Amino acid sequence: MIPFKAPIDDILFALSVTGDENHAAEHGFDAEITREILDHFARFAEDVIAPIDEPGDQEGCKIEVGRVRMPPGFRAAYQAYVEQGWQSISLAEEFGGQGAPATVCGPISEILAGACHSFQMVTGLVPGAARLIAQFGTDDQRQTWLPKLASGSHLATMCLTEPQAGSDLSDIRTVASQQEDGTWVLTGEKIFISGGDQDLSDEILHLVLARTGTREDGVRGLTLFLCPSDIGDTERNAITVTRIEEKMGLHASPTCQLAFDGATATPIGPVGKGLMCMFTMMNHARLDVALQGVAHATRAHHIAQSYAAERTQGRDRNTGQSISIDQHHDVARMMARQDMLAMTGRLMAYKTFALMEMGTNSDLIEFLTPICKSFCTDAGVEAAQIGIQVLGGYGYLREYRVEQTLRDARICQIYEGTNGIHALTLAGRLTRHKDGASAKAFEALISDLIAGTRGDTELAKQLLAYWQQMTSEIIASDTPEKFAQDYMQISAATYGVALWTELADRLSPDQTSRYEKCLAQVKEWGRVTLACCKARG
Amino acid sequence: MIPFKAPIDDILFALSVTGDENHAAEHGFDAEITREILDHFARFAEDVIAPIDEPGDQEGCKIEVGRVRMPPGFRAAYQAYVEQGWQSISLAEEFGGQGAPATVCGPISEILAGACHSFQMVTGLVPGAARLIAQFGTDDQRQTWLPKLASGSHLATMCLTEPQAGSDLSDIRTVASQQEDGTWVLTGEKIFISGGDQDLSDEILHLVLARTGTREDGVRGLTLFLCPSDIGDTERNAITVTRIEEKMGLHASPTCQLAFDGATATPIGPVGKGLMCMFTMMNHARLDVALQGVAHATRAHHIAQSYAAERTQGRDRNTGQSISIDQHHDVARMMARQDMLAMTGRLMAYKTFALMEMGTNSDLIEFLTPICKSFCTDAGVEAAQIGIQVLGGYGYLREYRVEQTLRDARICQIYEGTNGIHALTLAGRLTRHKDGASAKAFEALISDLIAGTRGDTELAKQLLAYWQQMTSEIIASDTPEKFAQDYMQISAATYGVALWTELADRLSPDQTSRYEKCLAQVKEWGRVTLACCKARG
Repeated sequence: MIPFKAPIDDILFALSVTGDENHAAEHGFDAEITREILDHFARFAEDVIAPIDEPGDQEGCKIEVGRVRMPPGFRAAYQAYVEQGWQSISLAEEFGGQGAPATVCGPISEILAGACHSFQMVTGLVPGAARLIAQFGTDDQRQTWLPKLASGSHLATMCLTEPQAGSDLSDIRTVASQQEDGTWVLTGEKIFISGGDQDLSDEILHLVLARTGTREDGVRGLTLFLCPSDIGDTERNAITVTRIEEKMGLHASPTCQLAFDGATATPIGPVGKGLMCMFTMMNHARLDVALQGVAHATRAHHIAQSYAAERTQGRDRNTGQSISIDQHHDVARMMARQDMLAMTGRLMAYKTFALMEMGTNSDLIEFLTPICKSFCTDAGVEAAQIGIQVLGGYGYLREYRVEQTLRDARICQIYEGTNGIHALTLAGRLTRHKDGASAKAFEALISDLIAGTRGDTELAKQLLAYWQQMTSEIIASDTPEKFAQDYMQISAATYGVALWTELADRLSPDQTSRYEKCLAQVKEWGRVTLACCKARG
Repeated sequence: MIPFKAPIDDILFALSVTGDENHAAEHGFDAEITREILDHFARFAEDVIAPIDEPGDQEGCKIEVGRVRMPPGFRAAYQAYVEQGWQSISLAEEFGGQGAPATVCGPISEILAGACHSFQMVTGLVPGAARLIAQFGTDDQRQTWLPKLASGSHLATMCLTEPQAGSDLSDIRTVASQQEDGTWVLTGEKIFISGGDQDLSDEILHLVLARTGTREDGVRGLTLFLCPSDIGDTERNAITVTRIEEKMGLHASPTCQLAFDGATATPIGPVGKGLMCMFTMMNHARLDVALQGVAHATRAHHIAQSYAAERTQGRDRNTGQSISIDQHHDVARMMARQDMLAMTGRLMAYKTFALMEMGTNSDLIEFLTPICKSFCTDAGVEAAQIGIQVLGGYGYLREYRVEQTLRDARICQIYEGTNGIHALTLAGRLTRHKDGASAKAFEALISDLIAGTRGDTELAKQLLAYWQQMTSEIIASDTPEKFAQDYMQISAATYGVALWTELADRLSPDQTSRYEKCLAQVKEWGRVTLACCKARG
């Protein structure tokens, strides 16, 4: 087994080229402090979190006496995580957090997902929940819940999906009824709830989307609720885990079916605006999912690289000496592709975080989020597939755990909106909504990146031109869905190639040699994407 | 769970368009008889074999008291399989078989792999072993072993890989020593031996590649041996199962590590020509692996199609009515791609079988075999990935078993030569060996297919022209490995598009409507492959 290693150098490189040093320093997180925090977290993730990943995959979660029991080692790891204060790093200082920006929290999510995706799943909704409560909660709700999230006594869940309502939430049937005393209770069934129950935190805060209007109101009849697992000091709320799913991977992340049977809850945000409020949390979660993809791609690359450097097979044509397989053209090609996928995903995601931190317009973030989610999660699966192929027969064995990487990575293309739905959002809504403000913001970003570059911008310009042409066609079309898949591909390539193009002529000699193969792969990716879209179009 | 259904109509269609009816009839297997046999086998596979697939995946194989125990139901299924005579269908009549041609045995393999890949793995090496013994065995070896294979008392294995010798067999260390009495014994360790032990058949016949020459002789020092699990009536040969591997999938196929500790064996074929003899068996096995890919692609498509027809999500833009997800553009697009992958793989493989049966030159078969192996196994994995995506969150659950399809299909890209090695063989050896006889035979086949077509041949001609250009460049190059990946892609597209082009204007109206979407997808695939290769080249 090849131990997990946090990709600190690549992360710091990505932060340095995508971020704004002055902005970060102003907020108390300059490059020096960021490096210290991440170094510290990397050691923690390697030493404490990574070792629970394999037993977690093998033993999985169980239901015992109506409660979920996490695999061995998870509770102790969570205690260490809380003791070191990692659960509160993104929360505001006034509520017991540390106020770290997204450019610090993003890398922590990435490292955590690489060490153990399941652990990151169960603990990872806290920042999004806190952001939601901070933004839409009453003063009372903020004072009540944010300190609990900061202390680690509560973890959070996001309860949206129901058996009949997955990609289309307008069919949600869980009902919120207001009692005579003005309080609310929830009744209904939610499925696919990650960490819907667990024994890491003492209690759980569920964020539940429920119907306050009629069925005919569709999504406009939905309101968001805070629904705690426990009421008062000793009483459990009326929420039952009715099953946990058996899945392809992520065995240590309990995917729960929850029955709400008149559970006490309080609305958060405006009645009838539940979906809008939930999007605050979901957009955060989507970028976290993008980072899971980056983490899997990186892990698969690391396993492949370590294995291929040691495994000898075949002989050098000239000397007749045995050679390690990383010297075979096909293996080297596959690993360069993995590396490019991981690094490009990382640059895309961190640039998006940096823009978010700098308060750049939210229209732009709205366009970049589905691109990051889709590209990075596809990258995670493709890189995992390559990892298995590089190891050959050994890749198919459990022993080297790259097959686990594929099994765990696979869900990322599905949850938080399938990649097909994100492509549809990009083509169908974001090119048109508010007179296409999101697409225009994206176009401006890419133009700026190209304009700021001294080096060769030919490919980036070709991609942008084709992207512009396709955007116009989509706006003029009655069937944007027919463009969706290609539009996602060309948007991702345009973003990725523009980022690499802009940074290429700022590289130090060391960086140039590290990222040389990535850059060659990026050009190939850009050319091939363009050619494919033209051939299909 | 969606029950397995054998794709009889698609198989008969593929046979009817790729085969030579007169040739088949001459050999006693006309269309009528073929249909009867396949209908009969389809019912058997659906009723008896498919039900053991899920418990096999969940319970897996175990070692008990030094012997492999297969999962529940496998032994009974094998008994039924033998009672109906399916194990001997390919063997010559004089030895107790039924003498069915590859165009009948291929479909049986495909159906069996779709019903339960693990069962097909353990039983599936018999035809290749029989072919090898018939071709290279002495009269005595034929008389001894072929009736045992025909009766089902023995199953066969292929023992090549060792820990240090996978893709490169020149490093094999298992030693064959000749005793004073002229008999041979084998000593060494083999890994990744499918069905290396099992409790289906009474005994096992291992075909073992071992060293009779020195280490320096490389592959020229290897000889093939017949090494039975039992000697005489009661004695076990000196072969021990030292472990079975834990794998990503195929849990019901025991992948064994075998220790040969002075095991009695007899050479088959010329001493020092073991690899050449083994290739007889391996080429057969490779086409069987191609069919496993076709089977997985078909199964994934069937699950996706059945699910998508029932699952409603979203509403019709005009009527406001709920619609099933197969009416969503993205889902329909993904499923059409799956169908195309399955059908194209099937046409490629069955055409190759038909050419083999007609005794067309073996140079052509040598070129087509790696194309079929690589294309069909990639198709199996891609279609399984799509299947999971169509089912969304449900695709990630064990319950619908399309995730099992991916886990089982994944090995096919690796075993019997990784797809990377096959690409290297195509570009590196088959363009040059014997003055490029294989590549020339392929070129002639494609030209014939195009010449026999009245319809639109433009795309097929473009692909052939690009293939010809690339072939010339490879022959002139010192580094064919750099072309290998693209050359495989363009060769597969050239073969696939030419086959569809030729058959397109022979379709009945019923067939036209069934294969309309396939044909559109084939054109897109051809155009995109051409564009990608040009963009990379």
